[in-house]
Amino acid sequence: MRFGVNYTPSAGWFHSWLDFDADAVRRDLADIAGLGVDHIRVFPLWPLIQPHRGLIRPRALADVAAVVDVAAEFGLAVNIDALQGHLSSFDFLPSWVLSWHRRNLFSNPEVVGAQADYIEALTAAVADRANLLGVTLGNEVNQFSSAHHPDRHPATRDHVDAWLTELTAAARRAGAPLVTQACYDATWYDDLEPFRPEHAARHGDLTVVHSWVFNGAAQAFGGLGEGSVRHGEYLLRLAAAWHDDPGRGLWLQEVGAPTNVVAEPDVAAFTEQTLRHAADVPGLWGVTWWCSHDVSRTLLDFPELEYSLGLFTNDHEPKPAAHALSRMIQQASGSAAPASAATPAGIPSSAASAGPPVLVLDDTDADTYRSRCGPGQDFHRDWLKLAVAHGTGPAVVLQSRLDDPSRPVRSRTGDLQRDTELLASTGGNRHV
Amino acid sequence: MRFGVNYTPSAGWFHSWLDFDADAVRRDLADIAGLGVDHIRVFPLWPLIQPHRGLIRPRALADVAAVVDVAAEFGLAVNIDALQGHLSSFDFLPSWVLSWHRRNLFSNPEVVGAQADYIEALTAAVADRANLLGVTLGNEVNQFSSAHHPDRHPATRDHVDAWLTELTAAARRAGAPLVTQACYDATWYDDLEPFRPEHAARHGDLTVVHSWVFNGAAQAFGGLGEGSVRHGEYLLRLAAAWHDDPGRGLWLQEVGAPTNVVAEPDVAAFTEQTLRHAADVPGLWGVTWWCSHDVSRTLLDFPELEYSLGLFTNDHEPKPAAHALSRMIQQASGSAAPASAATPAGIPSSAASAGPPVLVLDDTDADTYRSRCGPGQDFHRDWLKLAVAHGTGPAVVLQSRLDDPSRPVRSRTGDLQRDTELLASTGGNRHV
Repeated sequence: MRFGVNYTPSAGWFHSWLDFDADAVRRDLADIAGLGVDHIRVFPLWPLIQPHRGLIRPRALADVAAVVDVAAEFGLAVNIDALQGHLSSFDFLPSWVLSWHRRNLFSNPEVVGAQADYIEALTAAVADRANLLGVTLGNEVNQFSSAHHPDRHPATRDHVDAWLTELTAAARRAGAPLVTQACYDATWYDDLEPFRPEHAARHGDLTVVHSWVFNGAAQAFGGLGEGSVRHGEYLLRLAAAWHDDPGRGLWLQEVGAPTNVVAEPDVAAFTEQTLRHAADVPGLWGVTWWCSHDVSRTLLDFPELEYSLGLFTNDHEPKPAAHALSRMIQQASGSAAPASAATPAGIPSSAASAGPPVLVLDDTDADTYRSRCGPGQDFHRDWLKLAVAHGTGPAVVLQSRLDDPSRPVRSRTGDLQRDTELLASTGGNRHV
Repeated sequence: MRFGVNYTPSAGWFHSWLDFDADAVRRDLADIAGLGVDHIRVFPLWPLIQPHRGLIRPRALADVAAVVDVAAEFGLAVNIDALQGHLSSFDFLPSWVLSWHRRNLFSNPEVVGAQADYIEALTAAVADRANLLGVTLGNEVNQFSSAHHPDRHPATRDHVDAWLTELTAAARRAGAPLVTQACYDATWYDDLEPFRPEHAARHGDLTVVHSWVFNGAAQAFGGLGEGSVRHGEYLLRLAAAWHDDPGRGLWLQEVGAPTNVVAEPDVAAFTEQTLRHAADVPGLWGVTWWCSHDVSRTLLDFPELEYSLGLFTNDHEPKPAAHALSRMIQQASGSAAPASAATPAGIPSSAASAGPPVLVLDDTDADTYRSRCGPGQDFHRDWLKLAVAHGTGPAVVLQSRLDDPSRPVRSRTGDLQRDTELLASTGGNRHV
């Protein structure tokens, strides 16, 4: 299992691309490499590399390649995120899709074609680097399609499918060794979100999950409640329910300890428990912590929690979460591969009958089931009850697949009576 | 009278700030200086210099100063426009005023305070240069307040007054030798526009006018019609009507020959006639042609006319308008100062009784008079009739001032009978 860190530059945050300084990057990556992680996730700003639809700046591409090369000095692999897009409450869109030139980010052929050009050029600029881990199409680009976005770019399910297909192909064409796409959790929790679980589970090479307990979990269960420290695990197991290939991997690409809902003294415990529970999930490819460095207080307007999400302070001091992450990495590398790693994610095979419990998600009504999965909602609560009772979170299987004779799911024997009683008091979701 | 050029970089347009290259600027300014002009107008991009509310990039300021220094090599003075803002159909706003961080550009105290910081820092970076002409707050920033803007930032008349006052003070504080603010013509033609003629005529050191015949004049009168080649003159005379100080200067800061409405073979004649008529206006401080270089065809999405507005092609060949402008400059420098230059702008004095005609604009209803001034509307048509009849455009006086005993306006003798008949067929606007 891979451990990594989302790299937030200590000087100038992502605006530092405007004043690229390889030595400043070197200083930051030395901090990160000291934790024992194997990779970083790097975020170019789309409008700086492609400020005009017809202009992709060679020097900006060279700057991204330089970060990959500095990472190599520290033995770090690098995943590049292309379309930023959205970062920590700030949206970065080029002027050629704004106001007088507003065109839909997901369905306008000129825009999507230019995004493909951008992703292809960005990938090509780093494809020959041995330490290139892969390319993610963009950070939570689905935020722009959200019903809650103030300048929403509407998209249908088909638009999203076509968009993901075209941009994934662009990254592959240019030689990305691993292509992924990253959604925020509305994909699983929001009935109105056009980026659906199927999109997350069927495009790209891994299913990517971003787990943020400020989105309801910590409010409902407390910062160290089971609903919070198992939130990453929950999202991973939920996402796996849509896998067609039971061997498909899962990437917990963002998870962090937001101090607006996790008390400062609890951050280390939150970190450790979150990582431990996530590591139980079969098929977990890796975890990438958010984030490397606190945002400087000289930068204004960030949500308060962003100033304290770093593993390091803005002036390079490691914080409790850094020590917790480092310990977990040492333990993981010292032990044999966890037993569960041999079990593929997704629908449990008959061989898993002695394994973890299985919970059925009734996805029959595609327009309404997602809100039932949200933090503190009935499906989440039932999942948690089984997780606590069994000591490990249940796998999730879709009702639509139980009903599909081509996808057999065997019932497991075990604590069926107890589980039935457990679930009767909340949503009454089926287990099998 | 000053002649200048709005500088549009030949390589990379204004995105060239991202890859600043003093030699590329040098090559462009050599073209411009060859015309005999005395100044250029330079457009930094606001989001690149102040990408974050708390971050003004020293290197970006140094790049702007470097342009001023390159201009000095060619004997060119430089006017810096701060808030871009808007350029040739593209809006450039920093992420800290967009979407999740959207705050009103004109009335939010945090935003206006940061804009003042930006203008102060930008001015301070160049204030010690002997060839600094001045600072304009921004290019047509009033577009963002327009009722037609797709992401309008509403503003009241008082907001605009406070905004102009605060930002003008910031530029003065940092030592700008000349401070101006630039509106597009909605200020005079659009009843809904919150930036009003009073704002244009009373803030800053000069009244700035941008004359674009694609905004109705050429459509109504033809590219070489009197309504087109006198459009710059008309706007100047109209703007002067609000002057409190009859000695206040006027700057025709943008005027160009857009080939969507001026036929290519007519561009040189349009240029010459436009400049000649503008030069007749008392108090004209200078004219700055739009623009130096055609936009490259490799850059997409511009309105078609932007690819041909340059005095030079994208590869540095002078075009007919360049020759016309150059000839005009030679003639102007060869002749004595025009007689009219001695006459102050604005309300004609009794000494002007033998001078040009005077037309009264009925501004009694502040909510409706502006649309009557638009190209092809009744006030413009009456003004044109008198201009053609007299060979020079009439000065404009406001009805509200005629009615004000503290602002005496003497009637002129002359062709009153003829003028009355001329005007009876259109709006019947009064002349005095």
